[in-house]
Amino acid sequence: MAELRKDPILERWVVFSTERAKRPSEFLVEKAEKKQEIRCPFCEGNEGMTPPEILSYRKDDSRPNTPGWWIRVVPNKYPALRIEGELNKRQRGIYNMMDGIGAHEVIIECPQHLEDIFSLDQKNIEEIIWVYRDRMRDLAKDPRFEYALIFKNKGRIAGASLNYSHSQIIVTPVVPKRTEEELAGSNKYFTLKGKCVFCDIMNQELDSKERILWENEGFVSLCPFASRFPYEITILPRQHHCNFETITESEVKNLAVILRKCLGSLDKTIPNVPYNYLVHTSPYARASLGYYHWHLEIIPRLTRVADFEWGMGFYINQVLPEEAAG
Amino acid sequence: MAELRKDPILERWVVFSTERAKRPSEFLVEKAEKKQEIRCPFCEGNEGMTPPEILSYRKDDSRPNTPGWWIRVVPNKYPALRIEGELNKRQRGIYNMMDGIGAHEVIIECPQHLEDIFSLDQKNIEEIIWVYRDRMRDLAKDPRFEYALIFKNKGRIAGASLNYSHSQIIVTPVVPKRTEEELAGSNKYFTLKGKCVFCDIMNQELDSKERILWENEGFVSLCPFASRFPYEITILPRQHHCNFETITESEVKNLAVILRKCLGSLDKTIPNVPYNYLVHTSPYARASLGYYHWHLEIIPRLTRVADFEWGMGFYINQVLPEEAAG
Repeated sequence: MAELRKDPILERWVVFSTERAKRPSEFLVEKAEKKQEIRCPFCEGNEGMTPPEILSYRKDDSRPNTPGWWIRVVPNKYPALRIEGELNKRQRGIYNMMDGIGAHEVIIECPQHLEDIFSLDQKNIEEIIWVYRDRMRDLAKDPRFEYALIFKNKGRIAGASLNYSHSQIIVTPVVPKRTEEELAGSNKYFTLKGKCVFCDIMNQELDSKERILWENEGFVSLCPFASRFPYEITILPRQHHCNFETITESEVKNLAVILRKCLGSLDKTIPNVPYNYLVHTSPYARASLGYYHWHLEIIPRLTRVADFEWGMGFYINQVLPEEAAG
Repeated sequence: MAELRKDPILERWVVFSTERAKRPSEFLVEKAEKKQEIRCPFCEGNEGMTPPEILSYRKDDSRPNTPGWWIRVVPNKYPALRIEGELNKRQRGIYNMMDGIGAHEVIIECPQHLEDIFSLDQKNIEEIIWVYRDRMRDLAKDPRFEYALIFKNKGRIAGASLNYSHSQIIVTPVVPKRTEEELAGSNKYFTLKGKCVFCDIMNQELDSKERILWENEGFVSLCPFASRFPYEITILPRQHHCNFETITESEVKNLAVILRKCLGSLDKTIPNVPYNYLVHTSPYARASLGYYHWHLEIIPRLTRVADFEWGMGFYINQVLPEEAAG
């Protein structure tokens, strides 16, 4: 059983996933590129290679875990957190810990072996966004869970174990450190100015136009002023909502359009760019927060993160966002 | 001129070092291993290949920037921050920025081509620690500077551009985010309990012995309870001081002993382990802080940092610290 532990100084939680433990000799200093598996567990026809599906978009006359689907959600075969059990919160001296309870699911975004979401049709991408929302809502019913993290890894450098268009959802019994930081920072701004900092950023960026990438009725995409990484992108909904789950039908359409444009243009700039994207949303328990604004963050994985960037949260970036947006 | 920018949400500073800018086509998705340069700029005899030295430990009859030294401090040839100029703090709407002023120096730890500090003599390591202190103290005199970060990169994966025992010091005009977080977290604990959280950690670890690596009169080394990475190590001085600069002669001796043991045993466990170490100390302007305790952090670079670890500050570690310490 994995264990969650909280650093008593930074209040940052860590999962100890001892089931995936390695002996020292198993660490490779530079991982070799794995060969493409001959039978791909995500391709249509190989449904038996994954755990049974949780949800699928499939033809009416097809049965679960057989061909006929175009989006499929399955439990992660090697989950970071497990769904079964109690949290078992406990303390030893100054340390706090709990069991590694949560959910870890894979969203297989197409039945054929395609590498990137932007090569899918507009309609497919909309459906993927609906799946994000539906899995988030479904898992919200479980009182053990505090936060839902939706993310995508594209390319091995970005952590993808398969070159196949897919996303993941991890649902955690604690609020991640970064989310707490964003909540604290935006709350501080709200207390001072009575306004949402994300709305203010969006407005200032729309005025200056320097760092805007694409915009439509529902969303604005930009390279953030203090980007940590070259070609980093933030996609913000124009309508203030703290929670991704509130997304409307027209927003889903507009998000699909802008996400496809952002990723397509990024890949055009840097062919085969490895990247992560993450949905930043408020924790489950919070209702409507005036100070927080959900958004999607795209992080190209182009540079090795250095020494003191790691240790100090003091990053060096080689590309100005207004150049990246240019 | 590089520019520093503060993220208005997280209050995290970023350096924009546009002089080292790359065009998109220059990014390599996986960096190839560089060949060893034929003439090494750090080796004795090649002093002309570095900028003029700032400090050296050398034979009395030798002149600066010639052979005869055994430790040498030079400006970084490609500095992240530059020493010349004013901070030029300014604001544009909700954004704050300043010029990229600071210091960035390299400490060449031996005159011959050795790869790791633990292969040096005890006496050499003591002198390296004295150099850390002296450079920190000297740069503290500049009122533009807020923080001194001393760190080491060992191995290319850990960011070292040369396989040669060396450290770096970066002095910044802002306090790094991680330091602010540590200060805030430890201050909160102090307010609640009237005690230093680092002292409490050390005492609890010395009681349980589960995660202790080595200890001596001056220092305790341990694998932290909520380690983010396999085989992560913290070295804490027994004596409570917020600032590394207060290190005493006997502490220098004891730190040299324990640092050598920690790095030597780590390398024995995982041969040729790439790692970073960082000195965490209080900012220049703060006097004696009851709640903060300087320490040295060793981060082996064994695993690729994943997707949501990046984005969320929610890490997955595959090795328990008590096993790492075992």
